[in-house]
Amino acid sequence: MMWQAAVSLDLPLTVLAASADDAAVRAGAPALLGAPDSSEALDALAAATDVLTFDHEVIPPAHLAALVERGVRLHPPPRANELAQDKARQRSALSALGVPVPAHRRVRDARELEAFGEARGWPVVAKAARGGYDGRGVWVLDGPSRAREVASDAALRSVELLVEEHVALDRELAVLVARRPGGQSVAYPVAETVQVDGMLRELVAPARVEPAVALRAVELARRVAHAIGAVGILAVELFQVGPSLLVNELALRPHNSGHWSIEGCVTSQFENHLRAVADWPLGGTDAVAVGAATVNVVGSPDVADPRERLGEALKVAGAHVHLYGKEPRPGRKLGHVTVLGDDVDEALEGARRAAAALGGEDRP
Amino acid sequence: MMWQAAVSLDLPLTVLAASADDAAVRAGAPALLGAPDSSEALDALAAATDVLTFDHEVIPPAHLAALVERGVRLHPPPRANELAQDKARQRSALSALGVPVPAHRRVRDARELEAFGEARGWPVVAKAARGGYDGRGVWVLDGPSRAREVASDAALRSVELLVEEHVALDRELAVLVARRPGGQSVAYPVAETVQVDGMLRELVAPARVEPAVALRAVELARRVAHAIGAVGILAVELFQVGPSLLVNELALRPHNSGHWSIEGCVTSQFENHLRAVADWPLGGTDAVAVGAATVNVVGSPDVADPRERLGEALKVAGAHVHLYGKEPRPGRKLGHVTVLGDDVDEALEGARRAAAALGGEDRP
Repeated sequence: MMWQAAVSLDLPLTVLAASADDAAVRAGAPALLGAPDSSEALDALAAATDVLTFDHEVIPPAHLAALVERGVRLHPPPRANELAQDKARQRSALSALGVPVPAHRRVRDARELEAFGEARGWPVVAKAARGGYDGRGVWVLDGPSRAREVASDAALRSVELLVEEHVALDRELAVLVARRPGGQSVAYPVAETVQVDGMLRELVAPARVEPAVALRAVELARRVAHAIGAVGILAVELFQVGPSLLVNELALRPHNSGHWSIEGCVTSQFENHLRAVADWPLGGTDAVAVGAATVNVVGSPDVADPRERLGEALKVAGAHVHLYGKEPRPGRKLGHVTVLGDDVDEALEGARRAAAALGGEDRP
Repeated sequence: MMWQAAVSLDLPLTVLAASADDAAVRAGAPALLGAPDSSEALDALAAATDVLTFDHEVIPPAHLAALVERGVRLHPPPRANELAQDKARQRSALSALGVPVPAHRRVRDARELEAFGEARGWPVVAKAARGGYDGRGVWVLDGPSRAREVASDAALRSVELLVEEHVALDRELAVLVARRPGGQSVAYPVAETVQVDGMLRELVAPARVEPAVALRAVELARRVAHAIGAVGILAVELFQVGPSLLVNELALRPHNSGHWSIEGCVTSQFENHLRAVADWPLGGTDAVAVGAATVNVVGSPDVADPRERLGEALKVAGAHVHLYGKEPRPGRKLGHVTVLGDDVDEALEGARRAAAALGGEDRP
């Protein structure tokens, strides 16, 4: 999707891809093949480009630091990236900024994990401090025995754990900010997300919240973007609990919660990411319809191939289908569908029908 | 732009491109390199694909006929394509369908050309029956001496001529229809175009005409699409003269007059072309904004490179910039800018400013 945005602007983008099956390579982006944790591959990419940016968080911080030392322009800067990589450090940094986050603690062993649960009351949520993604590395613990199990498993795999309160949330929100190196920024309308098994499954925009809550969410996201020196897209995921907002997670890259902006906003998150990273004027972020909904296409247990079901999905009026060209596997994000409309619920209903047709399963 | 649409649907598109500098190849479309008038290249493309379509009109009809004979699926069919290639035959076919066209005649020599002018009154318009494009192959003749000049030049180059009345038009309109092999079709809102030197320069949508005129334009375009068996996008260019409409030209492919649909309509002309050719359900064609304007970026005499002026152009609020990655040359279409808004004139003003910034020249 980033490459499609680059094509419109005739921007010479080169990707570092782990394999030729990578979606960006299939979409035709010029690519260097190499592992994202290989310093040789990163050096080659830096040599081929004027500025580096990221669309995931698995690049070793030491490699990033080495690139900066050599004068390579990295957007976002490593310090900001590090916060996206390390949830424990992220929580502490946000707390230090006065940004509300769930009560949390870094824990070293089962005893500390259990103690947090006993003090707070079960359930609590354990998370891998680094490397979690789409629900992997997150465990809801209903009591001491599950806590010991997760802690011993983490110790075996040398996974550092963070524990936090299980927030009784009303809904999850997401705000995207695009920010240039000099500080100019734009924010997208607040979206409302539904996660299933820790993976974003559905989104509607604008979020069905009071205007005051939406304004505060945007204000929080902008504050975080400036404080951490984000450049490019920053996605801020929030928990809404009544009138309160807690920042749950940050992503410093175009994010699933912004896919609706491709059709739903004046400028897509992908184009604004490129514009921010290239230090060009940012594009407008207004919504172009009253309501928008995105539903992810997730690989079904029978491993249906959504490409074979396109004809069905395209029957849904206004369905904007995006398939990522990935090999279908159960539980894997294979694409998404966005529908715009005069009514958020109608849009959601349409996006669900099209995504269900592609996924080959009935909606729950 | 077609490739960008194909990426979203994960549609395996292969292009036949004359060179690796071709915009589609630069955008990453898998390509066979070869000339569009080479039957070997067409055979190779047919072998690599399930269905063939076109984005220009320079494929020799004999090659198309040979492909059909071998059972290759061509959309649109050669018979329809032939009408797009041959203006004289196009005019006759449309007349036979009862579709109003400018008064015209195929002429064999200067004498016949002159006779038409004398009978009708000067000026008249001479056109190459085949191969004209973006104003090339069109001559406005103000009297007998210019007519003799053009006729002798055409004879020297074996160019067959068509002559027609010089229509005192109020404005030019364009209607796009997307049609599936089985006949299902959708039509886009009527756009109003401004040509400079025979090349589309500006467009606003919807056209500033009475609703009855717009309805008749759409009705005419649909009638033509069905009558000629168009498959994919058919662009119908019309002259409006008071309450009357005359069909000027047909193009059986995504067309410059439909570029505004990328941002301006629920489904772009490129996606609907692919959907029609693949025989999938067509997407909605409603406009997503009250008004839209597109201005082409045309190479300026000082041969400025629009890529170096992106930062200026992106300052214009809501400017959707598309650069085609072509080597800048004076008079060459290098890209376009679309702006949407609540007001057609404001959108046009914005698109002009952004295009002027990219073209490096002041607007006329």
